[in-house]
Amino acid sequence: MNLPHPQENPWQIKSSKLIYENPWIRVDEHQVINPSGNPGIYGVVHFQSNAIGVVPYENGEIWMVGQYRFPLEEYQWEIPEGGGPFDEDPLEAAKRELKEETGLTAKNWEPLLEMNLSNSVSDEWGIVYLATGLESGIASPEETEDLLVRKVSLELAYEMVEKRIIRDSLTVGAIYKMMLLKLQGKLP
Amino acid sequence: MNLPHPQENPWQIKSSKLIYENPWIRVDEHQVINPSGNPGIYGVVHFQSNAIGVVPYENGEIWMVGQYRFPLEEYQWEIPEGGGPFDEDPLEAAKRELKEETGLTAKNWEPLLEMNLSNSVSDEWGIVYLATGLESGIASPEETEDLLVRKVSLELAYEMVEKRIIRDSLTVGAIYKMMLLKLQGKLP
Repeated sequence: MNLPHPQENPWQIKSSKLIYENPWIRVDEHQVINPSGNPGIYGVVHFQSNAIGVVPYENGEIWMVGQYRFPLEEYQWEIPEGGGPFDEDPLEAAKRELKEETGLTAKNWEPLLEMNLSNSVSDEWGIVYLATGLESGIASPEETEDLLVRKVSLELAYEMVEKRIIRDSLTVGAIYKMMLLKLQGKLP
Repeated sequence: MNLPHPQENPWQIKSSKLIYENPWIRVDEHQVINPSGNPGIYGVVHFQSNAIGVVPYENGEIWMVGQYRFPLEEYQWEIPEGGGPFDEDPLEAAKRELKEETGLTAKNWEPLLEMNLSNSVSDEWGIVYLATGLESGIASPEETEDLLVRKVSLELAYEMVEKRIIRDSLTVGAIYKMMLLKLQGKLP
């Protein structure tokens, strides 16, 4: 690649303070010297797990999950997603989340995309897998999840993205990538 | 659309506490009753501005910005991005950010995508515009920004996404969407 990636951190950290911690996030405030040499603060949200997503795909259709998203105070439709502990292989987390939320298992798995979800404030990292060769089974959602599960055509999902009804970042990226694969003739 | 969007919030909030606030984020912790009827907590990161992105596009090339991302401790290449105050039209914020970071102005603007960047924890909302009919000018980055600006082909940007070098969520979504428009013959 012909774009430079300087290694040096242009920010200086003078001191750091733990502000808040729960099982999902930790918030630190750093007293910093910014890249221009002036003092300031930087509040950082550290995530305590990876963001894992799965596109369960079969015959032009994908399985989606609907749930009320507490931070947004809004119902959203997404690909099956969940948190994966840092010491767990993301692929294993993906298999677990898919089974928990939809009951599905899959024969074939391949990585579809990776993202840092919100890099101005957090270190959250997410990965999405494409799962094919699906077999149905019994779902067992976590008790914080009150889920609807539906199978929709990839085209309908794309239309919902374009109408801003589907807005979850991993889901938007995944549906765009699936449409690209489709147009490139690369979908299984 | 044929997918249901129940309006009722299955979470009950018993009490809420402000944990932390700075000009960019506010963290609240809520004591909740979760959708299964059991008590728990929910830490929410409220953003104090919108996330604004721009794809400045001309003759098969886009302008990208490189910067060290403090929360990730890593240098990342992205489309020009910045925060837009809630009381500012996102399009005006996009024009301002593009000019600040790259010096560019654009004749034509159209919305490309919208995302909630990290909906399990935050209410951050982002929008990306496609900017064409570009004219160059003088950049004036904020002092917290130490930026490199480069023009790269859309194909190279896409290759960098596929190699997981570009990982910023708004940028990944925007590059996928640009590639879709290209394959659909819809790029200007």
